[in-house]
Amino acid sequence: MSADAQRVMERCSALASVTDVAGETTRTFLSPAMARANAVVGEWMQAAGMSIRMDAAGNLRGHRGEAAKTLVMASHLDTVPNAGAYDGILGVVMAIEVAEAMRETALPFSIEVIGFSEEEGVRFGVPFIGSRALVGTCDDVLLATKDADGVTVREAIAAYGLSCDALPEAMLQDAFAYLEFHIEQGPVLEAEGCALGVVEAIAGQSRYVLTFTGKANHAGTTPMKLRQDAMSAAAEWIVAAEALAQEKGGLVATVGSVSTIPGAGNVIAGEVRVTLDVRSAKDKVRREAVSALLAKAEACGLGRGVRVETKLRMDQTAVAMDASLTATLTKAVGDDARRMISGAGHDAMIVAPHIPSAMLFLRSPGGLSHHPDESVLMDDVQAGLDAGVRFVELLAVKENNA
Amino acid sequence: MSADAQRVMERCSALASVTDVAGETTRTFLSPAMARANAVVGEWMQAAGMSIRMDAAGNLRGHRGEAAKTLVMASHLDTVPNAGAYDGILGVVMAIEVAEAMRETALPFSIEVIGFSEEEGVRFGVPFIGSRALVGTCDDVLLATKDADGVTVREAIAAYGLSCDALPEAMLQDAFAYLEFHIEQGPVLEAEGCALGVVEAIAGQSRYVLTFTGKANHAGTTPMKLRQDAMSAAAEWIVAAEALAQEKGGLVATVGSVSTIPGAGNVIAGEVRVTLDVRSAKDKVRREAVSALLAKAEACGLGRGVRVETKLRMDQTAVAMDASLTATLTKAVGDDARRMISGAGHDAMIVAPHIPSAMLFLRSPGGLSHHPDESVLMDDVQAGLDAGVRFVELLAVKENNA
Repeated sequence: MSADAQRVMERCSALASVTDVAGETTRTFLSPAMARANAVVGEWMQAAGMSIRMDAAGNLRGHRGEAAKTLVMASHLDTVPNAGAYDGILGVVMAIEVAEAMRETALPFSIEVIGFSEEEGVRFGVPFIGSRALVGTCDDVLLATKDADGVTVREAIAAYGLSCDALPEAMLQDAFAYLEFHIEQGPVLEAEGCALGVVEAIAGQSRYVLTFTGKANHAGTTPMKLRQDAMSAAAEWIVAAEALAQEKGGLVATVGSVSTIPGAGNVIAGEVRVTLDVRSAKDKVRREAVSALLAKAEACGLGRGVRVETKLRMDQTAVAMDASLTATLTKAVGDDARRMISGAGHDAMIVAPHIPSAMLFLRSPGGLSHHPDESVLMDDVQAGLDAGVRFVELLAVKENNA
Repeated sequence: MSADAQRVMERCSALASVTDVAGETTRTFLSPAMARANAVVGEWMQAAGMSIRMDAAGNLRGHRGEAAKTLVMASHLDTVPNAGAYDGILGVVMAIEVAEAMRETALPFSIEVIGFSEEEGVRFGVPFIGSRALVGTCDDVLLATKDADGVTVREAIAAYGLSCDALPEAMLQDAFAYLEFHIEQGPVLEAEGCALGVVEAIAGQSRYVLTFTGKANHAGTTPMKLRQDAMSAAAEWIVAAEALAQEKGGLVATVGSVSTIPGAGNVIAGEVRVTLDVRSAKDKVRREAVSALLAKAEACGLGRGVRVETKLRMDQTAVAMDASLTATLTKAVGDDARRMISGAGHDAMIVAPHIPSAMLFLRSPGGLSHHPDESVLMDDVQAGLDAGVRFVELLAVKENNA
């Protein structure tokens, strides 16, 4: 039988109604809705000829084949609050569909499909708990992290009937390849009229909070030359951040949050707090851009009697996908496949440093994600499934020839 | 006897403890603390040889002399929440001191000292209730305005034992000159080493709220060229507003409040709301600046797919002080007196279109006002009192010669 996009769409729709919050789609790590989602997805895995188990991190794992060598296809089943139907889920359901399509095909490797228990970081403020279990980085710091109710990850795992003692068994042993399908969550493929995109790397990220401190003063009685206007300094810097990102290919820089204190129309802002988010597939490019922008912030403040304090919030290096596996995936899509960088983090970012990994993006209509209107086109899903099947076939040929 | 700055300082200190809120200085229109303040100030007026009355707007009025022609010296007795000891109050107390210093001097006009009941706009969100009563502009709209408890101005006046029916009697009849002493509430006099400043005009004000609307999108997955970043557009415009004000002498432009929506570090701002406050003594300069800035906002949005909506919140024309009276006040201060524009509104702004008015600023240490640490130097107060006495003497000479 061939992989069926319509069934994938129906299954994503069905999972969208499995929720912790009535009227929306919200599933968080080890929640009651996650248990119900695992039951449903587990049945689909079994129907596709896989045996299922749950590992100690709550990941749902479907397995077929006797070979030690294993191709892993995975994505996550948890969601952001009030999510759409496809972020994560689509990758799991497509993986099952590809496995089912290959059911009668003899393969020189086993297939494991994984539905990760946690990727979004909603419950514990820490993302990627599921995929971290696969690579053995669920450390004591993570296990001691508490949710809003004061429950630790360790306690949550125990309450779900699992045990952290079994976490080592969650680690991948003989995986030789990892493939993840995911919606792009951005506008690039749509803008270029492409259904699919082969991910070459996941961008590194720097996040900072900058505080510009000048002096709050009366907007009417303070002449321009006697001002220490924190907002003017911040504004000049925001424009510079945009200009720098525009001139560097592949770099993005975003100032998404600006707060003015005291924040009254007739008072010069004494303090302005802004966020900075810089991403690039090239760590050197990103770090140079950040250095330039932090220096520029000082310069913007200097002429205005405004001082600048910067706080680093995140410094995540870029993660390259495996070149050989990505070449195979590109061939599976078609030699003119669009190759691209992922600006967002994904489970593949956690797995790739340990196991050769590849990632396939599906076009996101309107670039929309993390929203109930998030969507994907059925034709794109079919193209993705076909590429997935070809990828497995190409991999089998390669393994047989090895 | 001569005017005594020390007594003025002591009286301001004493009034600072007359408050509606324990531990701070807060007095609002017709509040219990205002009643106590009126009682105290009324005694000082009587001790200075004045007869006192309260008009229908709750203004405390001290009068000396038989002549119909009247010199009015006034400022306000209400305060902002958690105020300093001098904003408004100093002007009333200095006026009493000047009147007392002139007590034995025969004058060709009467003197009326007024402590306005309301200038700050705290209780009803509408400022200048006291001085509006003097010029007959306490209209039905004002009288129907409600405070946070749903009490109208009319009801508040009745509850205080006064009657709106008597408002016409509050209007000035034979006033030929109005003088107001006030702290500068800005940094200009301090920066120039001047104790006093003669106000030539009160700046006109334009206030707007601008909404820049782009599109909220993922900070990682949205390339620079596919963004509609409302914050970048707003930032370019804020820089332009500062630059325009810097090149126009006497104009100030302030963006004091910026709000980003959704306001997350990893989301491009889809909407940004900013305030604009533009002031100038020249209405033409102010209006041209506003037009240029609103056009510039459109331009900043245009290249970014960001649209701009503007809402006018205030358009207050500039008010010139009386040229002849201001010349007399300048002479009283000394021929090298610093002449300046008031960037903030004052009661003199309400009175000046009806009665020839002059205004004297006293240096504000640190430019600080609307704050418990607001201060004034005793030497400056003495200089202000001396100038006030000379002003009255010069006015008497002028009237006698007329």
